Amino acid sequence: MIEVGIFGATSYTGLELISLLVNHPYAGIGFAASYSKAGEILSDSFPKMPSLHLISPGEADLSSVDLVFLCLPHGEAAETAIQALEAGCKVIDLSADFRLKDAAIYKQWYGKDHPKPDLLADACYGLTEITRESISGCSLVANPGCYPTSVLLPLYPLVQEGLLHGQVIVDSKSGVSGAGRRPKETTHFVSVNDNFSPYSIGRTHRHLPEMEQVLQDWGSGQTGMLFSPHLLPVSRGILSTIYAPIKNGTNLDTLHNLYQSTYQNEPFIELLAPGKHATLAHVVHTNMCTIGIALADSTVILTAALDNLLKGASGQAVQNMNAIYGWEETSGLVFTGGHHAST
Amino acid sequence: MIEVGIFGATSYTGLELISLLVNHPYAGIGFAASYSKAGEILSDSFPKMPSLHLISPGEADLSSVDLVFLCLPHGEAAETAIQALEAGCKVIDLSADFRLKDAAIYKQWYGKDHPKPDLLADACYGLTEITRESISGCSLVANPGCYPTSVLLPLYPLVQEGLLHGQVIVDSKSGVSGAGRRPKETTHFVSVNDNFSPYSIGRTHRHLPEMEQVLQDWGSGQTGMLFSPHLLPVSRGILSTIYAPIKNGTNLDTLHNLYQSTYQNEPFIELLAPGKHATLAHVVHTNMCTIGIALADSTVILTAALDNLLKGASGQAVQNMNAIYGWEETSGLVFTGGHHAST
Amino acid sequence: MIEVGIFGATSYTGLELISLLVNHPYAGIGFAASYSKAGEILSDSFPKMPSLHLISPGEADLSSVDLVFLCLPHGEAAETAIQALEAGCKVIDLSADFRLKDAAIYKQWYGKDHPKPDLLADACYGLTEITRESISGCSLVANPGCYPTSVLLPLYPLVQEGLLHGQVIVDSKSGVSGAGRRPKETTHFVSVNDNFSPYSIGRTHRHLPEMEQVLQDWGSGQTGMLFSPHLLPVSRGILSTIYAPIKNGTNLDTLHNLYQSTYQNEPFIELLAPGKHATLAHVVHTNMCTIGIALADSTVILTAALDNLLKGASGQAVQNMNAIYGWEETSGLVFTGGHHAST
Amino acid sequence: MIEVGIFGATSYTGLELISLLVNHPYAGIGFAASYSKAGEILSDSFPKMPSLHLISPGEADLSSVDLVFLCLPHGEAAETAIQALEAGCKVIDLSADFRLKDAAIYKQWYGKDHPKPDLLADACYGLTEITRESISGCSLVANPGCYPTSVLLPLYPLVQEGLLHGQVIVDSKSGVSGAGRRPKETTHFVSVNDNFSPYSIGRTHRHLPEMEQVLQDWGSGQTGMLFSPHLLPVSRGILSTIYAPIKNGTNLDTLHNLYQSTYQNEPFIELLAPGKHATLAHVVHTNMCTIGIALADSTVILTAALDNLLKGASGQAVQNMNAIYGWEETSGLVFTGGHHAST
Repeated sequence: MIEVGIFGATSYTGLELISLLVNHPYAGIGFAASYSKAGEILSDSFPKMPSLHLISPGEADLSSVDLVFLCLPHGEAAETAIQALEAGCKVIDLSADFRLKDAAIYKQWYGKDHPKPDLLADACYGLTEITRESISGCSLVANPGCYPTSVLLPLYPLVQEGLLHGQVIVDSKSGVSGAGRRPKETTHFVSVNDNFSPYSIGRTHRHLPEMEQVLQDWGSGQTGMLFSPHLLPVSRGILSTIYAPIKNGTNLDTLHNLYQSTYQNEPFIELLAPGKHATLAHVVHTNMCTIGIALADSTVILTAALDNLLKGASGQAVQNMNAIYGWEETSGLVFTGGHHAST
Repeated sequence: MIEVGIFGATSYTGLELISLLVNHPYAGIGFAASYSKAGEILSDSFPKMPSLHLISPGEADLSSVDLVFLCLPHGEAAETAIQALEAGCKVIDLSADFRLKDAAIYKQWYGKDHPKPDLLADACYGLTEITRESISGCSLVANPGCYPTSVLLPLYPLVQEGLLHGQVIVDSKSGVSGAGRRPKETTHFVSVNDNFSPYSIGRTHRHLPEMEQVLQDWGSGQTGMLFSPHLLPVSRGILSTIYAPIKNGTNLDTLHNLYQSTYQNEPFIELLAPGKHATLAHVVHTNMCTIGIALADSTVILTAALDNLLKGASGQAVQNMNAIYGWEETSGLVFTGGHHAST
Repeated sequence: MIEVGIFGATSYTGLELISLLVNHPYAGIGFAASYSKAGEILSDSFPKMPSLHLISPGEADLSSVDLVFLCLPHGEAAETAIQALEAGCKVIDLSADFRLKDAAIYKQWYGKDHPKPDLLADACYGLTEITRESISGCSLVANPGCYPTSVLLPLYPLVQEGLLHGQVIVDSKSGVSGAGRRPKETTHFVSVNDNFSPYSIGRTHRHLPEMEQVLQDWGSGQTGMLFSPHLLPVSRGILSTIYAPIKNGTNLDTLHNLYQSTYQNEPFIELLAPGKHATLAHVVHTNMCTIGIALADSTVILTAALDNLLKGASGQAVQNMNAIYGWEETSGLVFTGGHHAST
Repeated sequence: MIEVGIFGATSYTGLELISLLVNHPYAGIGFAASYSKAGEILSDSFPKMPSLHLISPGEADLSSVDLVFLCLPHGEAAETAIQALEAGCKVIDLSADFRLKDAAIYKQWYGKDHPKPDLLADACYGLTEITRESISGCSLVANPGCYPTSVLLPLYPLVQEGLLHGQVIVDSKSGVSGAGRRPKETTHFVSVNDNFSPYSIGRTHRHLPEMEQVLQDWGSGQTGMLFSPHLLPVSRGILSTIYAPIKNGTNLDTLHNLYQSTYQNEPFIELLAPGKHATLAHVVHTNMCTIGIALADSTVILTAALDNLLKGASGQAVQNMNAIYGWEETSGLVFTGGHHAST
């Protein structure tokens, strides 16, 4: 049994994390810190949440916990990570601060100098299914972005097999919780309801360099991928439609077998039968990534769905904690109850 | 450990029940029967559901199970109940067939003779918090309607204390899953989205005689209550706003204390602080009934919310099974996972 | 042809008003003022709006227009009204500043002294169908609240006929645009979607004294009415379900005839056949108020629907302008185009 | 002034058409025919619609009208078109029956022989902005599919200029009204709400051969385009995100100028500033097609939005009627009223 601390407890990812941790068999919540709600009881503001006492970040006793989760804005997260590491805590960072390996690229996309560039080399990228071995001995895990998780997991088998052959185009659609809990014009109900909006399309979204970095690490020559996110009128869920050109001559059965052999033992990856496509209904309120495979001439069209707050954030963060400590990876993540049903 | 059978497995309540039972510590699924999908694998049609083999109702081996859940239309349910009782099974009926005690009233509201009127006297009304003692020895439990559960639980303390004094007006609002899975014009997305519709208002909805019967059993003089349901553009959840005139001179604190003393040990009833109102966000994807109490002159305004598929149907059915067998009433009903969070 | 000015042009009611006025046969837009977007072009921020140049309120030349519409917060509106009246403009105020006749009641509900109490007596309450005669010679029209419009129009025939007999209970449900365009936690898409929430129920909402004042003016003895608003997950529309006790012995046909004779020549009131209920789909994107009548024993249950931004605000404001100038009351308000269809 | 007849009057496109025609300055509705609602009054079933008497298709007097609109399923439409043409009517067919020029391709995609292949050569493809000259003398207009309209209008300038250079990938998202009014599992509110689903992706949707035929007519070498539709949880609207590889060396300003010069006089095409993207909010309840242009290396990313029932169906059908008769093309299509506003 370990104790964990949570920074940014009242963000969407913080709330989701707390929901998971209250039922985790090996981890207890040591503290939950929040700037905006310090001093309050969590359940007073958030229906269905436990009645945790929220502290201010300054009150956090890092010596009392084994691991901290950072549900903070980028920039802020790095500062807290440094303190936590110095206090001997392990760190799982849900922000973007330790995802990019190159401080120059960080500056280019995030508009400021990285607060601690020498730590970048130590951070492990926590795409659990692919990197779990490196995570197990790691003190600082960079939890992947929600979009990259929905793109990298379905692309991995193609890259590993050397099948990818040309420019990948990713057309992604995300629910509104991905934009965070702070009220903005763009997240007002009236702006989102009955609407559907592209944003940061082409080569302009911050998750693009993260995806390209990983693909290049995996040995793909991919340098000019296109990534177009869109805002869906739903609360949760990401669906990415991925157009991946491959070498001629591979058929759908071969592809399906490749995915099956890669992912057959993964509890959080669901591979659909050929011709079936992933939908949000497959994944919302679960830690699953559901993948569908279609083939049109020499383009593989992958559909991949996940819950942006679970497999795309807090669920994967718990999965990474499980990997760090060598616990069953599904600990705290196999849900009971009505949320399995079709509604 | 017991084995249970489910009739009507691919209805919304059937699916929800299966989701609960696959995680129940003391009950296993012996069979799941469906007219429309017999011979198929459940997960092929319903994302997130387990890969159960569905049988036709005729193939059901009643001798192989201890209890059956009936997720069938009224009329059909009674026929199956008779067979199951004769085979020695206990029965929890989610239809309306055994809720009314008077066959003449059944005929008046359901438009046909009751298929087995002599069984009506044997059936126990399964509003678990109130009737759990009678349920424990009962072979045939009539699971309450979704609307009545959302009305009777909040009214009970007032009636018990003898405070109710005049005509109760209930203004209820329900999500679309309450109308069932069969596609109809009224459940088409385009009909429901951006819309809000009253239906069967006043004294014309079938749940009205059910509520009045129970209130009269409890000794309320209530005979002319008004009940106005409305269709909400949401998938799940009921919120009832209840206007209950009381005797002069009772204040809000006294009322709150009454509710607290009545329900303080109930795991599935959440009583809000005075002045706070129940919302769907309090309850969706849980087995909770959340109750808010307000007072305006001599009218108590109760707001009560529940998930129509859980506390309003399948969750309460499992709660009733737990009561029959004397298990911890929360068995299989305390959910882990992300659905606790605010989204 | 007159020229009008708009203050608060980028509020929801301001935008709606501009949409109406660009097609009005007798009124042109002289200026459109906005604090937050002064200096910008309206269409740059708001898709589908005309490319109007927005000025700051201080730049508004009151001598250049005949009438101003105030789409401002209460308190602010009164200040601007005074200046406009002094400059010789007619004023239609969409805020609450001139709806209540009693400055003490204003202070009680709005928490501050009324900025110009001596003007209260001069203001005409602009519930057009009922008060159009007084409006025609009026310089300062208080446009009714959205909820009161949806309650007073359906209650009027009962009050006029002297049928009302006891406490009225109003259970209202409104779309999110009623809460304004400023982003708040309560209007975040994730807070509203899949949710339904009561607020300010009983005798605590500011529209209650407005409704009681009018009912008392009409000679109803109504002093203790209950009014419970709820937030719907839709962008536009209000549906009020009204429980009105009446004297014994009136039947539904008599009631229907009463409503028909009262409203048969009103272009913006649609009376449904007995037993049919109003829904949001009847009214959204129109200036109609649709009314359904049901009777349960001696309670009339009225369902009344309107678009909160049109008949509940800007549409009625234009109707009031038409009444002031003696134009056909439907001028600028009979819509062409696809928004009539069922979707 | 002409008289028109409508077949399929109670389909979504039929209802939308009627809404437009009741306000058309030069066309009156001679008859409105419906199989399912013959003998009824339109407004009884459909709020906000006029009180038209619906006849059965067999009762239609083709000699009494100048033109008929066919809002019928494919196959059925061709049969009625033949009769109408023989009776001397002009025909605007909103089905797919006369869009494809090659009867063999029709059979391949629609699964049956074309009912009247010799008529295919006579039919004019009614993409009004591009083909209006051929329409003006045409008796049989094939109204384009909703998806093709959203793809062809934005691609046209690239093709005309000879800039297109490689495989086009179209990722489209449509609201539920595109699936028709008949209730199905896939259009049940509970199936669609909170969900997002790909379907018929790659090279499997019937609108693909329609688009490829037109592109080839325009001289594009396009033969292997990919087209992936998805179902959005909204009632109306299509947004297509189009990835179009172009010859190296063209910059965004040049592209924008090209589009501006092509479309500057088109009342129903809105070209956004470079870097702005089309959204559903730009177009819903209007006859506009809004186009955004972005450039990423040598791929143009076009975002194009339209209302599938207006510019994607009935609005364009009226536009085509206007073109046939040489009336102002905006006749009956420039909407007044509140639907311009941002909600």
